[in-house]
Amino acid sequence: MAIRKKDLPLHEIRRFLEPGPIVLVTSAYKNETNIMTMGWFTVMEFQPSLIGCIIAGGNHSFDLIRKSKECVINIPEVSLLDTLVAIGNSDGKEIDKFKEFGLTKSPSKNVKAPSIAECYANFECKLYDGKLIDEYNFFIFEVVRARTAIRPKYPKTVHYRGEGIFMVSGDHVSRRRDFKPDRL
Amino acid sequence: MAIRKKDLPLHEIRRFLEPGPIVLVTSAYKNETNIMTMGWFTVMEFQPSLIGCIIAGGNHSFDLIRKSKECVINIPEVSLLDTLVAIGNSDGKEIDKFKEFGLTKSPSKNVKAPSIAECYANFECKLYDGKLIDEYNFFIFEVVRARTAIRPKYPKTVHYRGEGIFMVSGDHVSRRRDFKPDRL
Repeated sequence: MAIRKKDLPLHEIRRFLEPGPIVLVTSAYKNETNIMTMGWFTVMEFQPSLIGCIIAGGNHSFDLIRKSKECVINIPEVSLLDTLVAIGNSDGKEIDKFKEFGLTKSPSKNVKAPSIAECYANFECKLYDGKLIDEYNFFIFEVVRARTAIRPKYPKTVHYRGEGIFMVSGDHVSRRRDFKPDRL
Repeated sequence: MAIRKKDLPLHEIRRFLEPGPIVLVTSAYKNETNIMTMGWFTVMEFQPSLIGCIIAGGNHSFDLIRKSKECVINIPEVSLLDTLVAIGNSDGKEIDKFKEFGLTKSPSKNVKAPSIAECYANFECKLYDGKLIDEYNFFIFEVVRARTAIRPKYPKTVHYRGEGIFMVSGDHVSRRRDFKPDRL
């Protein structure tokens, strides 16, 4: 069943990325598309909504993203754990990962890279600053459209610890009353 | 009681940082020290062991770290949640956060910034590349010494979702058998 989604204000993407989940990055260039797993990224700014991330130079996605200057960052829930492990252990030069792993291409609005329908969130990104790509494989993207599932309120995400071990997100606690309003 | 710690090979820091916990950054310059909470960072490279992070320009820590070119990234467990919230909602120009919040300065080995004895891990960092500081407040550090608690194997960490809400790390699952050896 399709996941119902709504727009998320762009400066609020930190709510879903700052906790550090493994994400799936989709890309498109000419007639090719690809998906890669990614764990090395950070929020960089609220407005414009910036994300910095490492995309290793050997990846097929690296070429597609560098040429198209676009991608979508998709957040999978734990139900997709085996799928994201399989994606991370296969090569987009050899297979069509959407077809191989039964994922649905959902058209994006502001980029050509497809969004993954089965993911909790889809953040459409355009390359904002590429000056650290050659030295560090570090891309700075601006999020230009953000969609998240209507429910649950918080996705159950997976967080990579290396060596094939994943941490699954746990309970939520609020300390809102202890924050100064300008520090939330 | 003091936490017993051991050295961690520098290329393995990703095991503790990639899952995305909130960390405490300690700094020192001349006679001043400070502590700040940080949630916007990413692993960037295994060897040298690089971390990129955002330190907002208004922070007292920003000045201490820019001048000293050093810091320590400390990983607190959930038992320190109220302490890290208090640290994030106070100003190092006004108070001595170590004294105010009852944290113990443990001498670092390779940097002047103190380590926090009560934290699960302490990663001593030296500024590696400052070229994005002016434009993005983005610091690239090299980890030059890493220490972690002998137990537990995995710390119970807190992950920030904005709006005063924290996710606490949950269970661990292994998919090691599904990884190609070179992708672990």
